[in-house]
Amino acid sequence: MNFINRRQLMVEWGHCDPAKIVFNSRYFEYADWSTALLFEAVFKMNILEVKEKYAVEIPLVDVNARFIKPVMWRDVVEIASEIDSFKRSSFVVLHQFFSRGEHVAEVQETRVWVEVAPGESSKFSSKPIPNDVVERFKVS
Amino acid sequence: MNFINRRQLMVEWGHCDPAKIVFNSRYFEYADWSTALLFEAVFKMNILEVKEKYAVEIPLVDVNARFIKPVMWRDVVEIASEIDSFKRSSFVVLHQFFSRGEHVAEVQETRVWVEVAPGESSKFSSKPIPNDVVERFKVS
Amino acid sequence: MNFINRRQLMVEWGHCDPAKIVFNSRYFEYADWSTALLFEAVFKMNILEVKEKYAVEIPLVDVNARFIKPVMWRDVVEIASEIDSFKRSSFVVLHQFFSRGEHVAEVQETRVWVEVAPGESSKFSSKPIPNDVVERFKVS
Amino acid sequence: MNFINRRQLMVEWGHCDPAKIVFNSRYFEYADWSTALLFEAVFKMNILEVKEKYAVEIPLVDVNARFIKPVMWRDVVEIASEIDSFKRSSFVVLHQFFSRGEHVAEVQETRVWVEVAPGESSKFSSKPIPNDVVERFKVS
Repeated sequence: MNFINRRQLMVEWGHCDPAKIVFNSRYFEYADWSTALLFEAVFKMNILEVKEKYAVEIPLVDVNARFIKPVMWRDVVEIASEIDSFKRSSFVVLHQFFSRGEHVAEVQETRVWVEVAPGESSKFSSKPIPNDVVERFKVS
Repeated sequence: MNFINRRQLMVEWGHCDPAKIVFNSRYFEYADWSTALLFEAVFKMNILEVKEKYAVEIPLVDVNARFIKPVMWRDVVEIASEIDSFKRSSFVVLHQFFSRGEHVAEVQETRVWVEVAPGESSKFSSKPIPNDVVERFKVS
Repeated sequence: MNFINRRQLMVEWGHCDPAKIVFNSRYFEYADWSTALLFEAVFKMNILEVKEKYAVEIPLVDVNARFIKPVMWRDVVEIASEIDSFKRSSFVVLHQFFSRGEHVAEVQETRVWVEVAPGESSKFSSKPIPNDVVERFKVS
Repeated sequence: MNFINRRQLMVEWGHCDPAKIVFNSRYFEYADWSTALLFEAVFKMNILEVKEKYAVEIPLVDVNARFIKPVMWRDVVEIASEIDSFKRSSFVVLHQFFSRGEHVAEVQETRVWVEVAPGESSKFSSKPIPNDVVERFKVS
């Protein structure tokens, strides 16, 4: 079973658009930070330390979102985040959004496990995800 | 052939993150507004007038993005937007992003053609896209 | 003495710019929402209910910010918000930002107490702030 | 007389809040980038080259904004930016916002001229602004 990290946030006025609902780009801000918090919860370290421990970055290469129900100003949203699948050097993070007892949105991020070349932060090459990393995201 | 609307923008400092590249949520801001500009170019009207003419909104229900190459602060980006396909009451807008002569990203938005009930802007129901709308997005 | 509402937030990756510090516009998002939370803490109601109770909006007309020390990705920030002064129909909200035990920034918002004309949400006129509102923001 | 750089932008849907006006934090995004464009217009170089030429950064330490009239979705805004005053190692950039023929907002940024220590981008110390820089922002 996958480890699931849950967090709650309240939708701010400035996150909403003239239709009075969350503007779509904000879901990607919520999801991006939820991935960091998922890693922190799993590794019991801050995300900077996790990245340093493995000398990696985890850039986003692909993202899908589905907006099921509108979410409004001051709604409380619970985001349940888990790693849906691992491949050799990439993984998919699934973020499910709930509000007022309903499933309101879903974001799926595909991220790559890439080596950071020392001193040249823009040069990336993917590398295999270590087994201990994969194991940590499971709960038995 | 599909009508394609092209616009250029320069990536601002505040759009970039500590990795010195465009933060992912900004692509969805770029795409959202590019859809409005595509409608304006096709209808030769402002987007408010287009929505009023048909008494519709075109909410986003699904979006996919693919980030192919990093885009950096002050890069000039050209966004080519077109309607990729029409269904009965929904359509897919394809936004292709180019910079430094390369294809750097792609965003696909699925939007629904919905009736606006007078006085109740949060009540929506989808309706068929009129034929003249579909025709306008073609060039022969 | 003024009632002070404190909240904590963690600075997200997407809030930071290529200098690896919080991009300035984000402080105004933090402050705007902190004002809503100050009102909620004082009135023990949600902000929508407060606005309805008095049939007002509290638009921002003036804002000053001072950035004292840089704040970085994943820093925990405490925001202490209070109403610094009331005039007849306006008030100043002071938000002080602390991180790593230091005073890192300050935002001062001037907001107006305006009547909402029924049905015409864009027509505003300022009105005197009721005495009970002023009293609630004091602690003895 | 001060050199004034003017640019126009159209207010995007996603820049507006449920009151249907530009959310306040967006003005600071507009202003920040307008400062970069003012420097580019004056130096006839891109902003990265200007910063490299003088080995400086120009961080924001203080900002004031005044919101005079609401600006709405799809309004065209003209921003007139100039350096209002120079001190020894700081300067004030004044951005005036016009829309529909009216003065709608004003942002004043105080920025510092700081040396970038090689290799340590977070270590800053202010230094005197060279005379040729001051001269370039004047027109006779």
